[in-house]
Amino acid sequence: MRLSSGDARQRLAAARVARLATVSVAGQPHLVPVTFAVDADTVYIAIDHKPKTTTHLKRLANIAANPQVTLLADHYADDWTQLWWSRADGHAAVLTAPPDTEAPIALLASRYPQYQDTRPTGPVIAITVTTWSGWSYT
Amino acid sequence: MRLSSGDARQRLAAARVARLATVSVAGQPHLVPVTFAVDADTVYIAIDHKPKTTTHLKRLANIAANPQVTLLADHYADDWTQLWWSRADGHAAVLTAPPDTEAPIALLASRYPQYQDTRPTGPVIAITVTTWSGWSYT
Repeated sequence: MRLSSGDARQRLAAARVARLATVSVAGQPHLVPVTFAVDADTVYIAIDHKPKTTTHLKRLANIAANPQVTLLADHYADDWTQLWWSRADGHAAVLTAPPDTEAPIALLASRYPQYQDTRPTGPVIAITVTTWSGWSYT
Repeated sequence: MRLSSGDARQRLAAARVARLATVSVAGQPHLVPVTFAVDADTVYIAIDHKPKTTTHLKRLANIAANPQVTLLADHYADDWTQLWWSRADGHAAVLTAPPDTEAPIALLASRYPQYQDTRPTGPVIAITVTTWSGWSYT
């Protein structure tokens, strides 16, 4: 039921959506669903054109204060024998300079057609993954 | 695009799976997918018979050290105009005495047939939600 590090990485990398957890200075967790791309042991997430409830993004403020983050992808089915999840724990940095964001944004655009039409212009979160873990019911 | 508190609560309550974020003493976030039930402004999650990678559950240790938790449900589609998410921020307590866990477990069993066959016997996480928030693309 425990997935190998390689299997966990592969399943997470193939998922279309994951959830990013960050933590505030006060120890309050924050969660948002994210689109992302995996390159070896780095995960990239762009601040993109999807409408936001605020421009002062909590996820970026949290990472600035505490770089420890976690990313989770999972599969749910009412048949619980089909369940699995995959998790990446690591530390995040926020990339803003175009020479740093160009390759990650190209990688994201190769996964999501929306990014080909509307290239993300915001910063890119780069997560250096220290642990890939996962679980499946069967 | 921002959902009302009531809409966010309703969407989360109707979801079949959510993700629970807790935080360790060292400020490391932890994420797991969970089955759950909502009763007014309380969310219940049982430690159930789904196979676990360990019996010393990180989520329970984290809650004991820091009761601040967040729960997220979301909908992903390659058509991004269909996207939405709903989040519950609150503080968690761990219920272990049968008089406290009986009603939550009955509520969970009414949502998930698996719990009718195999009643959860482990502790129940009760989250008192202080903020319901959410977002939809359109």
